[in-house]
Amino acid sequence: MTKPFDLALPVAADDVDWLDDASARVDVSRFAAGLAMMHPDAVAAEEPLEIRIGGVSLAILMRTPGHDRELALGFLRTEHVVADLADLTSIRHCTIARDPESVGNVLQVRLREGVEVDLDRLRRNLVANASCGICGKATISGALRMAPPVHDLLRLKAEQVLPLAGKLRRAQRVFDRTGGLHAAGLFSEDGRLLVAREDIGRHNAVDKVIGWAMGEGHLPLTGHLLVVSGRISCEIVQKALVARIPVLVALSAPSSLAVRLAEQAGMTLIAFLRGDAFNVYSGRERVVP
Amino acid sequence: MTKPFDLALPVAADDVDWLDDASARVDVSRFAAGLAMMHPDAVAAEEPLEIRIGGVSLAILMRTPGHDRELALGFLRTEHVVADLADLTSIRHCTIARDPESVGNVLQVRLREGVEVDLDRLRRNLVANASCGICGKATISGALRMAPPVHDLLRLKAEQVLPLAGKLRRAQRVFDRTGGLHAAGLFSEDGRLLVAREDIGRHNAVDKVIGWAMGEGHLPLTGHLLVVSGRISCEIVQKALVARIPVLVALSAPSSLAVRLAEQAGMTLIAFLRGDAFNVYSGRERVVP
Repeated sequence: MTKPFDLALPVAADDVDWLDDASARVDVSRFAAGLAMMHPDAVAAEEPLEIRIGGVSLAILMRTPGHDRELALGFLRTEHVVADLADLTSIRHCTIARDPESVGNVLQVRLREGVEVDLDRLRRNLVANASCGICGKATISGALRMAPPVHDLLRLKAEQVLPLAGKLRRAQRVFDRTGGLHAAGLFSEDGRLLVAREDIGRHNAVDKVIGWAMGEGHLPLTGHLLVVSGRISCEIVQKALVARIPVLVALSAPSSLAVRLAEQAGMTLIAFLRGDAFNVYSGRERVVP
Repeated sequence: MTKPFDLALPVAADDVDWLDDASARVDVSRFAAGLAMMHPDAVAAEEPLEIRIGGVSLAILMRTPGHDRELALGFLRTEHVVADLADLTSIRHCTIARDPESVGNVLQVRLREGVEVDLDRLRRNLVANASCGICGKATISGALRMAPPVHDLLRLKAEQVLPLAGKLRRAQRVFDRTGGLHAAGLFSEDGRLLVAREDIGRHNAVDKVIGWAMGEGHLPLTGHLLVVSGRISCEIVQKALVARIPVLVALSAPSSLAVRLAEQAGMTLIAFLRGDAFNVYSGRERVVP
């Protein structure tokens, strides 16, 4: 599929920047075994990213710089601001900034003529911090109203699930330096890692992966697996559901609402993938021993 | 200090509820060492909490039920909605609900006559997901405008820092069952754990601790330490700064902006507290070898 919108920079340049922007050097005093010494250390970079549509500020995300346009694409899609890549004509970093430090922290999104965005609805959703009501049931029915359950014939053997943690871990280049980032990785049915993204924000890492897939014309992600390094909240399941991902795998724990939404959305939720073991919380029919 | 507002339930009852509401039972298929079997498991509860002021919805937080009024108090204080406990007259759970499942998920806050809240400013802040501008510098100056740097004479020996991780860990009762919660603990200068709170949301755990201190009349938290189980983002530092906590300790990594804000706010930021070692990222003068 051709990309119908103008990427202000080629993706390769973004990839190169990432290695520099995603971490920052600091001096720390290290206390260990009764001794103290100064040494340089790397910490995960955290900077605000403002997303503007037609000049109007839509949201400010605290994120790790790098793959910003993928983050914006994924965010706009999973928050239901746009339905399709064809709704956009361009996403560009603003090049004029009042302050040199803010260069790279503003993305200007242009929509195709005729595409309307309900900014007020989105702001309400963001205030709500999820597309939710005031109980779990309302949260789930709200999510399913925006994205119906998946019906995906993907089947996996337990042996296919076990190596996913190691494959994602080996792709976490910034984590290696900082120990401070969440990661999300998209895998094909046969266990190939298609893309991995890191971010200080758990949701951002998922949005970057989904935004990458959207930019590549890979949505919907039928037959794919999403693996996340940390815990799974309801909102992570909701984002995967919008992208039509049938299998979600976490290295750590799920929440109660994540399990309930995954169940009702027809998704397979696997968590606590560690060593040679994992738990399946929903959609058990997809995992064959 | 007497508490000038009406707590709808005695705190003791809230404590008892917590043990039941903070986790949910689910059935999982466990795959381990080539075998699959079904067994019951506990997951961390996640439910929306709506905070209303005078009938108007202010925010919906995805949180782990329990200590809801502390969460609301801490949230209202650290988001600068109220400046003092005396600004409030009551915080009560709504007892009338359209849906039985939503009972307990709505908190009604009443303010003292004459206290005005700028709801629009708060909503802008929440959309921004931090009190931030479009660069780290603006984020930091915004935070310092709302809460000036701390000048706290607290001094610690390395031996006082080392046991904090174990003390917090032993207080994580829900984590023991679910493996899925963040924790925050408030410590006195002499290393006593005053309160520990757990939540699916890292920020919520901190707000619950600060809200507890506020309800007890302990703000400002001069001479205290806040210990968090996970990573430290800019927003965690900002919340601790509002409560005037001079020393922030994390078991995992800090972000770049967290380090910069802590530096400029005169706070001591300690991270990677593991085993017999830790790193000091800012405010080194408070830690004596």
